[in-house]
Amino acid sequence: MDMHELTRELKVPSDSKIVLLVADGLGDLPLEPGGKTPLETAATPNLDELAVRGILGGSIPVKPGITPGSGPGHLGLFGYDPLTYRIGRGALEATGIGFHLTDRDVAVRGNFCTLDAAGKISDRRAGRIATEKSAPLAERLREVKIPGIEVFVEPVKEHRFVAVFRGDGLGGHVEDTDPQATGVPPLKPKAANAESQRTAEVAADFVSQACKLLADEKQANGLTLRGFARKPDLPSYEEVYGLKAAAIAVYPMYKGLARLVGMDIVGQAQTLGEQIDVLQQEWNNFDFFFIHFKYTDSTGEDGNFDSKVKRIEELDAVIPRVTGLDPTVLIVTGDHSTPALLKSHSWHPVPMVLVSKVCRTDRCTSFGENEAIAGGLGQFEAKYLMPLALANAGRLTKFGA
Amino acid sequence: MDMHELTRELKVPSDSKIVLLVADGLGDLPLEPGGKTPLETAATPNLDELAVRGILGGSIPVKPGITPGSGPGHLGLFGYDPLTYRIGRGALEATGIGFHLTDRDVAVRGNFCTLDAAGKISDRRAGRIATEKSAPLAERLREVKIPGIEVFVEPVKEHRFVAVFRGDGLGGHVEDTDPQATGVPPLKPKAANAESQRTAEVAADFVSQACKLLADEKQANGLTLRGFARKPDLPSYEEVYGLKAAAIAVYPMYKGLARLVGMDIVGQAQTLGEQIDVLQQEWNNFDFFFIHFKYTDSTGEDGNFDSKVKRIEELDAVIPRVTGLDPTVLIVTGDHSTPALLKSHSWHPVPMVLVSKVCRTDRCTSFGENEAIAGGLGQFEAKYLMPLALANAGRLTKFGA
Repeated sequence: MDMHELTRELKVPSDSKIVLLVADGLGDLPLEPGGKTPLETAATPNLDELAVRGILGGSIPVKPGITPGSGPGHLGLFGYDPLTYRIGRGALEATGIGFHLTDRDVAVRGNFCTLDAAGKISDRRAGRIATEKSAPLAERLREVKIPGIEVFVEPVKEHRFVAVFRGDGLGGHVEDTDPQATGVPPLKPKAANAESQRTAEVAADFVSQACKLLADEKQANGLTLRGFARKPDLPSYEEVYGLKAAAIAVYPMYKGLARLVGMDIVGQAQTLGEQIDVLQQEWNNFDFFFIHFKYTDSTGEDGNFDSKVKRIEELDAVIPRVTGLDPTVLIVTGDHSTPALLKSHSWHPVPMVLVSKVCRTDRCTSFGENEAIAGGLGQFEAKYLMPLALANAGRLTKFGA
Repeated sequence: MDMHELTRELKVPSDSKIVLLVADGLGDLPLEPGGKTPLETAATPNLDELAVRGILGGSIPVKPGITPGSGPGHLGLFGYDPLTYRIGRGALEATGIGFHLTDRDVAVRGNFCTLDAAGKISDRRAGRIATEKSAPLAERLREVKIPGIEVFVEPVKEHRFVAVFRGDGLGGHVEDTDPQATGVPPLKPKAANAESQRTAEVAADFVSQACKLLADEKQANGLTLRGFARKPDLPSYEEVYGLKAAAIAVYPMYKGLARLVGMDIVGQAQTLGEQIDVLQQEWNNFDFFFIHFKYTDSTGEDGNFDSKVKRIEELDAVIPRVTGLDPTVLIVTGDHSTPALLKSHSWHPVPMVLVSKVCRTDRCTSFGENEAIAGGLGQFEAKYLMPLALANAGRLTKFGA
């Protein structure tokens, strides 16, 4: 059952306001069995106060044991079943750098590579060429001209770039041209269905012209294309929930994910404090606010337990500014766990607290991983968070008489 | 996965007996965060003793955040996925007043309305006409004669009545005739599929004759029809569980819902004490007993916390009479929560206790919302209760060799 079938049917108007504060990668592990996680270590008087007033649970991003990327992690929190709505890699990469995809676009990830005299790949990542060197090369590829097609090329990092082909009749199903091996030439773009034949031709033309433009670049004289994808077709927050939604994020990836579900991107905040400023300024203009805090994830990725503790305390400090606005429903959680011990995303359920006047408070008295799994919501798939938020906000009517 | 596919395949005969005692709307909220619910407030020594011997859990009626009506609430407890089996509103309304629908029937909810001289609706609810005045009008509509069709009209309350058309070839998909506005005439009945063409014609004939019969009634000289529906096609308890089941209920709605899944309606009890008398009398005649207690819901709907506490204590008092019969499995729960604070049904999980000799007792020592979510069954969708009951009753064999 797609929960959107229910929320579409049952949604009712309301003046209530919902705030979803996502601390990216919030969940973690103790450094030693029996120890405390960063969230349990941090001094979080304000989050603990939410735990007292709210209901806790462990949010499973996708399914037990499944570690999500940022795309599925956020789609789950936004209430879009990440197993139903899969964002193609090209589209996610374009979204991640803030490229606004349209319905006529096919996006693809490009890798610069090194080709030998025979045109065979000698280095699949062009020696991990520095970004300062690769970015001008990516920009040079904008000179490619294909009749009837607009071509966009954007640098990403090191050997990576994004290409977007905009035109009519471009299907998104073309096979990767990366042979995943050296000593062989890149593969030809090959359509995986009839609708994508034109895309394969466009891609082949692009590669051909690009290789000429790069011919004199010894380190990066070739390229491969991976993850062809059209813009994912996600119904909007307005349509499935009846919510006018705003996203307050610093990084392009999260603005992009929010834009895909129809949120307005508001403000130009660069710090958490500025994000809360934007929340205050926009308070009367929206029903729903998604606030994204990146640094609980990046410190986890860095394996820096202590820095993650500090970032959590930074988050805790702004909570009174949020509660001061008196949201009908306030949720604090993460899109996935990023344990400092693992230096990567993980599958562990993410602590979640939901506060509303009708949430049915549980016995939890602090906000942390162990406390959360004993909470009133137990463990649940992230995709159920939005229906719960809507219910607590008085935005869902009764199912059946 | 429809659990009935499994229970059909795995069910085995047994002499065991299952009692499902449903306290309607049992779940609740504290009046203030951190306070106690009515169930936690009530003195319930007998239910607490069940909690000690049994296993507790929080029953999610439909899905997280979804508030069910009585129909979906009970279907879930009966083990029929309420998202798969949807009872049309006309059929539920007919069921609710005790009308026995047959496979040749289409039921529809009728509203008396007020029409102006031009035939346009001036009041969609006929000024919420008193039941004493509207009931004779509904009965007058029984004079409508349609060739080949039996017409039944039953008063409900105020401006509402039920019409049932009985005949061959009557599909259930006809659009509502209520335009949901005043200043416009009622809509013509319009078939939504070919199978319902005859039903639309019958409905149009009914409306035309009814308006003539009502012509002199200034307040209620018109009517609209909503929620056309055939009898829902639910497999029986006997077929899916191998259970000979009895329902002991006071109110027509719950007798009707039980009848839809093939339960026998036994006794004519008017009080909980009389319901338990009937249970004792019928003990040897059935495998499964559904006992419905209404007043935990109605006191919740009234917002009367203290009355709900008293009703729960009334329920607690009869428990020894039930356990005295030594049922193999005894379950006490509700079909949904009806918090006195909200004066309405809600989405909150419902406390549930299941007692059997093999239930694997948990650490819970009392019966209440907070204790239940820490119980051995955690939180689970209500539709899994029947498979658990059958297992505890020794009525399901092994799946796979």
